[in-house]
Amino acid sequence: MSDARWMALALSLGARGLGKVWPNPAVGCVLVRDGRVVGRGATAPGGRPHAEVVALRQAGDAARGACAYVSLEPCNHTGQTGPCAQALIDAGVARVVVGCGDPDPRVAGGGIARMRDAGIEVVTGVCEAEALRVHEGFLSRVREGRPMVTLKVATSLDGRIATASGESQWITGPEARRRVHWMRGRHDAVMVGAGTARADDPALTVRGMGDVAQPVRVVISRRLGLPVDSVLGRSAREVPVWLVHGPDAPAAAREAWSAVGARLLEVTPDASGQVDADAALRRLGDEGLTRVFCEGGGALAASLLAADAVDRLAVFSGGVMLGAEGTPSVGAMGIAALAEAPRFALERVEQLGPDALSLWRRHT
Amino acid sequence: MSDARWMALALSLGARGLGKVWPNPAVGCVLVRDGRVVGRGATAPGGRPHAEVVALRQAGDAARGACAYVSLEPCNHTGQTGPCAQALIDAGVARVVVGCGDPDPRVAGGGIARMRDAGIEVVTGVCEAEALRVHEGFLSRVREGRPMVTLKVATSLDGRIATASGESQWITGPEARRRVHWMRGRHDAVMVGAGTARADDPALTVRGMGDVAQPVRVVISRRLGLPVDSVLGRSAREVPVWLVHGPDAPAAAREAWSAVGARLLEVTPDASGQVDADAALRRLGDEGLTRVFCEGGGALAASLLAADAVDRLAVFSGGVMLGAEGTPSVGAMGIAALAEAPRFALERVEQLGPDALSLWRRHT
Repeated sequence: MSDARWMALALSLGARGLGKVWPNPAVGCVLVRDGRVVGRGATAPGGRPHAEVVALRQAGDAARGACAYVSLEPCNHTGQTGPCAQALIDAGVARVVVGCGDPDPRVAGGGIARMRDAGIEVVTGVCEAEALRVHEGFLSRVREGRPMVTLKVATSLDGRIATASGESQWITGPEARRRVHWMRGRHDAVMVGAGTARADDPALTVRGMGDVAQPVRVVISRRLGLPVDSVLGRSAREVPVWLVHGPDAPAAAREAWSAVGARLLEVTPDASGQVDADAALRRLGDEGLTRVFCEGGGALAASLLAADAVDRLAVFSGGVMLGAEGTPSVGAMGIAALAEAPRFALERVEQLGPDALSLWRRHT
Repeated sequence: MSDARWMALALSLGARGLGKVWPNPAVGCVLVRDGRVVGRGATAPGGRPHAEVVALRQAGDAARGACAYVSLEPCNHTGQTGPCAQALIDAGVARVVVGCGDPDPRVAGGGIARMRDAGIEVVTGVCEAEALRVHEGFLSRVREGRPMVTLKVATSLDGRIATASGESQWITGPEARRRVHWMRGRHDAVMVGAGTARADDPALTVRGMGDVAQPVRVVISRRLGLPVDSVLGRSAREVPVWLVHGPDAPAAAREAWSAVGARLLEVTPDASGQVDADAALRRLGDEGLTRVFCEGGGALAASLLAADAVDRLAVFSGGVMLGAEGTPSVGAMGIAALAEAPRFALERVEQLGPDALSLWRRHT
């Protein structure tokens, strides 16, 4: 098999960890000797041990002279375990193929340099586009200080998420809902605005996918105006609830939410006193989140879009028309000219039972 | 080849006539003898001669003993030419395979009965779903007294067709525009509301498709409040312009539009004095149109949807977000509950360069 085929295997191994390994990257590693896999590893849930260590342990002595396919540059800093670059050297690996570099200032080429200095042949940039994609959340946090954001919208064919009276169930069907749960599970956190949390009283958990890790549930709520006896409040000890609020959130609400087990994250407001989308994301990045799945509502979607903070878009379209009285999927953005509007590049279209799904990425 | 394969050929031959043969159906006919095609025909532009006559002329004596594949039941009434059922009998055809029946009261099974009486073996309902689809406009006009309506919407990812300032160019790209021109050419008429005609001053012609038949251009304008020196007014002698208006349209406007060659179609207004969508479509059906392609704007789209008169939907989605200040693709529909909203079944999704296209049919 070619380097690209082995790297694809390493990438798909690693990607299974998405949503489970934050703040670490979901790395995959395959050790190959004489055309056979002698070790496989992925970053373990919680972020430790690293993929290379798992694969090397599995290979044992068979690692000597092998080729290691690693989706991200092996680390060069000593954390809870020694650096992975050194572990590959110590195991006698002859060749290392890397998907993409790690911009973490503690690594940033140092892992590759250390291995080359030790006489290992290192090839970089194999399946680089796919590697950058799998590690997008980790890279965003390291480079931009905020997690990658996927915005989900599930709308009628005229872009509405509810009727004037607030009905929003059954715009899309079971296949779309199942895909949403799958997407939630591949993110570190699911995020909604306070209006959606109040209107829908959602659980925001991953359901129907077997025994899986649950993402953190984040609500952006300036004044913490959410009932503590909501589904989120009642389940905050089982699955984490983080509330991002402003300095003007009342003490009583802070205490009530702390008492049920929620975590409170205060951020500096923007000029108009609202929670600033960029500040909220930076705070979530500081807390270790690398991948955030935003499910609305329209006001939060608009502020993320206006802040140019939406990296991926998943648009589910149900076969129904609701008319202009319906609730818009995206609130006011203050766009005067089309040239100012955020643009997205189409990745894929899909038919999901009765609904259409289109997947987009931020236009670069 | 099986009956279905030959019928597919007849259907695709016939479908080439869509947009060119109204008020007649776009029928295709293939004559097969000893496994070889001896005659092919499609309804000619303008609707005459019929497909069967074209195919029989091409076959000559070879039609004797042949099998005729006809997408729609052969006619049984004497128009400008004799009935096609009789022509097939006279030519000595041994077997006739029919796609779908013709509900025209002058035919309605009579063509099939006449051929059977003459000793021909007649098989019906071969590729019936596809035949009903190709002949949908013709069947709608015969059965419901109105043409089939395809509604096109080209929107941002949040369902907007223009920014607050009215900018609407470049929401979708060249591939989508090209597909729109192709779709126009497969319809008998392109229709817009007065607001869109005023705002965009469109030509509504088929461009970039070679030397093709042009659809009639229809504007729904209660009071004929459209400038005669618009693109439509200046070109009304080259490509037909039909204006559907109410009884309160001023005499001066009627005269001015008549003088430039437009055709005026007065319809009875609804209770609120507006042009009634259903009445307008019935009038267009009376005038022979079988397939109408509606390109907006939001008010006309909403009134067609509210009248349950949209048979097919083509939704082009451009990778841009415009926010809630933008112009909605569909105007107010007065829908209180989701259960009242018109539903559509997804037929296909496509990637068209940078844009997504989803095609829907009225839910039955």
